Amino acid sequence: MEYEISDKLKSVHGSAIREIFELLKKGGIISFAGGMPATLTLPAKQIDGILQNLVSKYGVVECLQYESTFGKALLLEQLKKFLPEYKGINAELQNMIILSGGQQGIEFMCKTFVNKGDVVLVENPTYLSTLQIVQTYEGKAVGVNSNNDGLDLADLEEKIKTHKPKFLYVVPTFGNPTGGTYTAENRQKIAEITAKYEVMILEDDPYSEIRFEGKAVPSVKCFDKIENVVYLASFSKIIAPAMRIAVAVANPAIIGRFNISKQSTDVCSSSISQLVVAEFLKNNLSEHLKNIIPIYKEKRDQMVKCIDKYFPKSFKYQSPHGGLYVWGYFDDDRDLLAAFKDVVNLGVAYLPGAHFFPDGSGKNTMRLNFSNATLEQIEQGIKAIGEYFS
Amino acid sequence: MEYEISDKLKSVHGSAIREIFELLKKGGIISFAGGMPATLTLPAKQIDGILQNLVSKYGVVECLQYESTFGKALLLEQLKKFLPEYKGINAELQNMIILSGGQQGIEFMCKTFVNKGDVVLVENPTYLSTLQIVQTYEGKAVGVNSNNDGLDLADLEEKIKTHKPKFLYVVPTFGNPTGGTYTAENRQKIAEITAKYEVMILEDDPYSEIRFEGKAVPSVKCFDKIENVVYLASFSKIIAPAMRIAVAVANPAIIGRFNISKQSTDVCSSSISQLVVAEFLKNNLSEHLKNIIPIYKEKRDQMVKCIDKYFPKSFKYQSPHGGLYVWGYFDDDRDLLAAFKDVVNLGVAYLPGAHFFPDGSGKNTMRLNFSNATLEQIEQGIKAIGEYFS
Repeated sequence: MEYEISDKLKSVHGSAIREIFELLKKGGIISFAGGMPATLTLPAKQIDGILQNLVSKYGVVECLQYESTFGKALLLEQLKKFLPEYKGINAELQNMIILSGGQQGIEFMCKTFVNKGDVVLVENPTYLSTLQIVQTYEGKAVGVNSNNDGLDLADLEEKIKTHKPKFLYVVPTFGNPTGGTYTAENRQKIAEITAKYEVMILEDDPYSEIRFEGKAVPSVKCFDKIENVVYLASFSKIIAPAMRIAVAVANPAIIGRFNISKQSTDVCSSSISQLVVAEFLKNNLSEHLKNIIPIYKEKRDQMVKCIDKYFPKSFKYQSPHGGLYVWGYFDDDRDLLAAFKDVVNLGVAYLPGAHFFPDGSGKNTMRLNFSNATLEQIEQGIKAIGEYFS
Repeated sequence: MEYEISDKLKSVHGSAIREIFELLKKGGIISFAGGMPATLTLPAKQIDGILQNLVSKYGVVECLQYESTFGKALLLEQLKKFLPEYKGINAELQNMIILSGGQQGIEFMCKTFVNKGDVVLVENPTYLSTLQIVQTYEGKAVGVNSNNDGLDLADLEEKIKTHKPKFLYVVPTFGNPTGGTYTAENRQKIAEITAKYEVMILEDDPYSEIRFEGKAVPSVKCFDKIENVVYLASFSKIIAPAMRIAVAVANPAIIGRFNISKQSTDVCSSSISQLVVAEFLKNNLSEHLKNIIPIYKEKRDQMVKCIDKYFPKSFKYQSPHGGLYVWGYFDDDRDLLAAFKDVVNLGVAYLPGAHFFPDGSGKNTMRLNFSNATLEQIEQGIKAIGEYFS
């Protein structure tokens, strides 16, 4: 039979990044396209240790029965320590809900607040999955001008007035895709401007622990005076993606709405994943970060060094102070979307930056992920891309 | 600030069953309200065995990295054996997607097919979370008359003609809430009628392995001639709810749409959960079912015996041939919604059946879950309820 797809899904064609990921799994390609943490940094031994006799240790109800939709008490208790210590955020139980990955928080935010035709303000460029999720709720993503230091505040205020957006989505620390980090002053102003117009913010913060240099900057949530900020922390990058565990921090009224949305989808997040994250936060995280940050820094250094060596001078970028990505553009107007397949045929993949722009611009931009390639692969891959574009 | 909730969520007030579950967690109450498998049947030792050295055994990428949204190859391969053997359904890789619990399949079905105002046909009564999910997509659930042998086929055809529904949702085997099982003939006719009008079916089948007596009946999917049936199998009841693992089986075009929806929410299901289910299907399921079915049967027998002994004769029910629930009603028009809190104060909880009716009728009905109470608790609880209503 013919399937009649709903209005909200019929124009959505899947995440480019996920399709590229499936393509590249066929092997033999050096990929800077994904956003995966370095496989060698994933804490295999620690997690095997946690899994050892897990059910005997915690008991059958804790490990195997249905769990509260809000999340496991054991994990929420750990988060009450983790959030102030690592994120500078205080959260009580009523302010938190466990998510099956940070992206579920973006989806719940759209479900809770976006009606057909509503505007969501985003950075320009922004995380591409957010663009897809806004689209599945028939909203419209509008970009706010931004650079590596933060949002253009005049443009933000202007676009709030023009579009009356439902919320502003930001990744202020080691942003995806740009790797940029907003200044503390920019964050404070964003909090003030959105508070003035009572516009909500979704602050997505999966990368901030992976800092190579410079001082931590307070989150936008730290400047939240009217409880308009919903904050997402994820454990995909600092523990392991396959856990699918994150947390949303917000006013209890919003957490209650997210709870209703979660009742309607996965009911609760995997208990074993929640217990692994709880144990890891308690016993392993601080040591683990000390071990992995130098590895990421070395990869970042290598990528930057190789770009300087092999890329034409028309490629402009800033070295990120943390996170997983180098972002840049050619100032001579090349089409990196069109060149993508040619470059993949050379055995290397970048991510065309155009996917991150709500208006489809940015054809001359690219995102390069340095976390999941070896130093040798980084040299070999960046050399191949550089030579192709020279 | 004031939060302005989206149209789709503002009238949704949370699952009654989840709220009752939170209430009853405070302890000391014999609960027949939930739908939890018997804690003592949950395979603690087998799962501890599978978790032992899991990461060393399967490797860090398989256990800890991002995974394909469609699901793990290792689990999908096991499902290619499980589905024909246990469900009589053949499925190739392109026909399957792993879900984070069966309910995620109900949500994806609504997201993929339901526009605002669209009708979804359901059994009358039906699974209450389906009513909530349809509501969050601004659809309208309309009940088709049904009894323990299946749907009223004339009413089904009539309601298809009147409402042009987007799909029909059914739990044909040991249904929730009624415990009833459609006859093979009824299933075949449902497949024929829906095929005639090109109406899709969502067949939800989480309970069929838990059969105490009688012969297995083919699924509606087995009679599917035009690929209008989306079939859901879950491992919450036969392995463990906390895994949050299920599978949808359908035409590849629909699986592709579910994949896009899953990209926008949890990206992939927990890898550890997927590996546990894959190993369990391979090595433990058949033995495990042999062990747990007699335990469930004994509980069912006890509940039926106690109802006959302690309930007034105005309570009408049929003993289910499998599953987790006894469903019944008082033929003297009592209000079991109104009585619920009184009965909870006596230390025992049933689930008011009205929650399962799309039109809010069924105030004289109740669902009694027998799986997660001891034989002694069943006697004590059924006696208390029976005496209250006598």
